[in-house]
Amino acid sequence: MKTFPITERTKISRTAKRGDYTEETIYSILNEAVFCHVSYVENGIPMTIPTGYGIIGNKLYLHGSVGGHFMRSIADGRMVCISVSIIDGLVLARSAFHHSVNYRSVVIFGKGTKIDDEIEAWDGIKAITDHFIPNRWDSVREPSESEMRKTIVISFAINEASAKVRTGGPIDEEADYDLPIWAGVVPLKLTAGEPIDDEKLMHGLSVPQHVLDYR
Amino acid sequence: MKTFPITERTKISRTAKRGDYTEETIYSILNEAVFCHVSYVENGIPMTIPTGYGIIGNKLYLHGSVGGHFMRSIADGRMVCISVSIIDGLVLARSAFHHSVNYRSVVIFGKGTKIDDEIEAWDGIKAITDHFIPNRWDSVREPSESEMRKTIVISFAINEASAKVRTGGPIDEEADYDLPIWAGVVPLKLTAGEPIDDEKLMHGLSVPQHVLDYR
Repeated sequence: MKTFPITERTKISRTAKRGDYTEETIYSILNEAVFCHVSYVENGIPMTIPTGYGIIGNKLYLHGSVGGHFMRSIADGRMVCISVSIIDGLVLARSAFHHSVNYRSVVIFGKGTKIDDEIEAWDGIKAITDHFIPNRWDSVREPSESEMRKTIVISFAINEASAKVRTGGPIDEEADYDLPIWAGVVPLKLTAGEPIDDEKLMHGLSVPQHVLDYR
Repeated sequence: MKTFPITERTKISRTAKRGDYTEETIYSILNEAVFCHVSYVENGIPMTIPTGYGIIGNKLYLHGSVGGHFMRSIADGRMVCISVSIIDGLVLARSAFHHSVNYRSVVIFGKGTKIDDEIEAWDGIKAITDHFIPNRWDSVREPSESEMRKTIVISFAINEASAKVRTGGPIDEEADYDLPIWAGVVPLKLTAGEPIDDEKLMHGLSVPQHVLDYR
């Protein structure tokens, strides 16, 4: 099983047993999560922005407006931290102290590369769109030249990454198991509801299969 | 309506119309979200950690292990960025370019204060527990002196904060409304499932009301 090297930045110091450096775990989390938090440093201050992303091979792609300060900042080669978090449940222990969360998270450190190659930029935007909702790209009006010019695409090589995963029930102090306190897990899941037609939807169009499949 | 001042850091540069500096919006998002992403700078590198939080008045509380590098780092007075994001839906436009997300997000900038006062530390942990799941605190075994000594509690005054909110359907180019492409919104919601009893649960205990209420 291929694993990522443990670096000073990705070394997990707290509850190290929850750390996972395997590609399998890291990519499964990256493939499932809907969005990430991107952090960068501006004049010594940390700035964090939630945004969508796409994956092609061992690269993560972000896109945004050419005019945006955020995109220009993370394209200039400074180190960026990309954090992806999925919450799977509340872990309710008998003691306040042992309450926890079931989660799967990934952190990636890397420097952004602005994509000047038109084909790679196109593929990056396609990957972001299909990460957002699988198979969407084939159903939509593709970007125009003018829209492409307004869009900046940035890639991050996924070389320095780690995952952290907690699963299972609460772990209480031995003496607390005799307390008459309910303990267990409340599962949490990001759930899709019934698709809502756009109010200007062309007459006669029904919800397509790739949108039904998302649920 | 009370609003937060717009600072250089909280000024929203992209899609400024989605910015919201009112206390009402900011606190409603903070009250609803389950966890936050905390970012700080370590040797010039941004580090981001997902964690739970609690709110008392105009302060946000975090807690963690005294031995943790993370907690010590954010307690030393450096500027920290706290990001809270709720995703409400996928916004599927006719064009790839106009795909978007309905979301409510808050960003807070502030410097942490380590809480040495025992009562405030206790209240902070209670607020974090009850933010996690309302009314849990009254049902659990409270922290022991030894557990309190192992826990560091840090407060952040909520003075520099902004929200960003997108709602509604897709906004397409005028010409695209004539395309036979389905457009609309797929609502997303973090949903609680059936509570799962801990396998070592004391015989005869049933799921309490505050856990049933969480659903």
